[in-house]
Amino acid sequence: MSLKYGIIGTGAIGGYYGAKLSKFGHEVHFLFHKDYEFVKANGLQIDSVDGSFHLSNVAAYHHTTDMPQCDVVLVCLKSINNGLLKEILPPLLHPNTLVILIENGIGLEADLQEQFPTLRIAAGLAFICSGKFNPGVITHQSLGRLVIAPYSCQDSALLKQIVDDFNTAGIEATCSDYAIARWKKAVWNIPFNGLTVVLNTTTDLLLSNKATESLIKSMMIEVIRTANSIGLEQPLRESFADTMIAVTKTMPPYSPSMKLDFDYHRPMEVYYLYSRPVIEAEKHNLDMPLTRMLEKQLTFIDSLRSE
Amino acid sequence: MSLKYGIIGTGAIGGYYGAKLSKFGHEVHFLFHKDYEFVKANGLQIDSVDGSFHLSNVAAYHHTTDMPQCDVVLVCLKSINNGLLKEILPPLLHPNTLVILIENGIGLEADLQEQFPTLRIAAGLAFICSGKFNPGVITHQSLGRLVIAPYSCQDSALLKQIVDDFNTAGIEATCSDYAIARWKKAVWNIPFNGLTVVLNTTTDLLLSNKATESLIKSMMIEVIRTANSIGLEQPLRESFADTMIAVTKTMPPYSPSMKLDFDYHRPMEVYYLYSRPVIEAEKHNLDMPLTRMLEKQLTFIDSLRSE
Repeated sequence: MSLKYGIIGTGAIGGYYGAKLSKFGHEVHFLFHKDYEFVKANGLQIDSVDGSFHLSNVAAYHHTTDMPQCDVVLVCLKSINNGLLKEILPPLLHPNTLVILIENGIGLEADLQEQFPTLRIAAGLAFICSGKFNPGVITHQSLGRLVIAPYSCQDSALLKQIVDDFNTAGIEATCSDYAIARWKKAVWNIPFNGLTVVLNTTTDLLLSNKATESLIKSMMIEVIRTANSIGLEQPLRESFADTMIAVTKTMPPYSPSMKLDFDYHRPMEVYYLYSRPVIEAEKHNLDMPLTRMLEKQLTFIDSLRSE
Repeated sequence: MSLKYGIIGTGAIGGYYGAKLSKFGHEVHFLFHKDYEFVKANGLQIDSVDGSFHLSNVAAYHHTTDMPQCDVVLVCLKSINNGLLKEILPPLLHPNTLVILIENGIGLEADLQEQFPTLRIAAGLAFICSGKFNPGVITHQSLGRLVIAPYSCQDSALLKQIVDDFNTAGIEATCSDYAIARWKKAVWNIPFNGLTVVLNTTTDLLLSNKATESLIKSMMIEVIRTANSIGLEQPLRESFADTMIAVTKTMPPYSPSMKLDFDYHRPMEVYYLYSRPVIEAEKHNLDMPLTRMLEKQLTFIDSLRSE
């Protein structure tokens, strides 16, 4: 039996993954916010390094109350909008629906589970460079891998089917341990997102300066040690920091999502990317002084922008 | 017997203190850099909240080789120029000359002593808001107190005479323990200088935001604990952080010296204000993670500016 997909937040990430699934014959229902009228009239355009395409008949919605129940819901919102989920998610849910949070940060699944105690939830970690700069047009620049990490879902048949759906749609997908996947992504996210904002720069310049390269490594080590102390099924090696730095050096000059939010005067995801990891560490009597300092600097910057 | 004073670096600080001493009848010899010709022709103007005045006959010099030996030399350079002292200081020195380093940072006196092993050295901590925005004109905005902290000078009679000279010239001056004085000033300098640069702001805005106020307090506590662990004659109380924050809240919006250096595209005193305290802490197996992080951020910013 084929799966019915719902996309909450059809932007750079949700738009790309949903459109790929849709193009390969899967039933996908898309929730749009600002772009709804445009996509209804013009369809959805994917400009992709892996081959561009156009979807003319998009199952587009403006309200989830108009959407059918789905087997898999990909939540691709900015995490600062997760407060909306309590209201907009229920129409899409049947007893076995799996909700995958394709968002950055720590603690997202726990917070959603608190609001929906019986909901099946997974994390989605997107390794992709993708953007939406115009209505109804997704620009996919590079990569695309999706890691699915089950948080409260033991249904391995369902997870396998989702992974297969993605793979046949041309998206590399794998399953991973939840805590390892979330913290591994935080190892990269925590230094690069915040420092590109505070120092108003890009990943390549941070790594071509010895001082900031060493700061980034210190921050990565701080995240790795925190994750290991909180307890992972398999501890992260500290050499993972060197690997992440080496990988980033091979990337073109890059502005992480928080830097784009900053540049485009959108609110920044300070809570789930910075405050929450610090809070989780504190629950285990661990301190993350560098992450905490960056959190304070970002909070200051964010407060001036929202005035 | 009256003391002969020399001023190395006649700017916002050296110009003000030297002019006050000169006005009250002391013999003061001033070394000028860019302003030499202007002051030779026009004299030195002090615009001060405590009463403005003009010195028409200034003992102005362009090279220390033309200056007489002095009993007291006030070094009021930016610490990044202290490398020049090895060459420019000797003409001013007789066997009992006291050199007072009125500069910001940690480790300045130790470095000078290494170059001049028998020299008598003291630290000078200036609590003053003063600037030089035009040639030959010093603008004294508020405060003015000078703390003299002997580093390698046991001559209490000389120190008393200097303090008396300042006090009669209308400048509140006192003596203090060396290490306590330097670290107490660092408690304020370390958070405010660097954070106003990295966040491109002023002291008042940093303290009107809860996140940065708490960061500033954490940084102050880090400096206080480091100083106490390195060993002070009398340990600093952690409540000194609250006092410094409360005092700063009473000040008008203020740009510390490093922020002015940043705004006017001058090199910043990163080494003695940030790198050196971290190095001194490391010598005692102490870590200053917040100070170190700010040092790395400032080093990055400084490197982009000097290109």
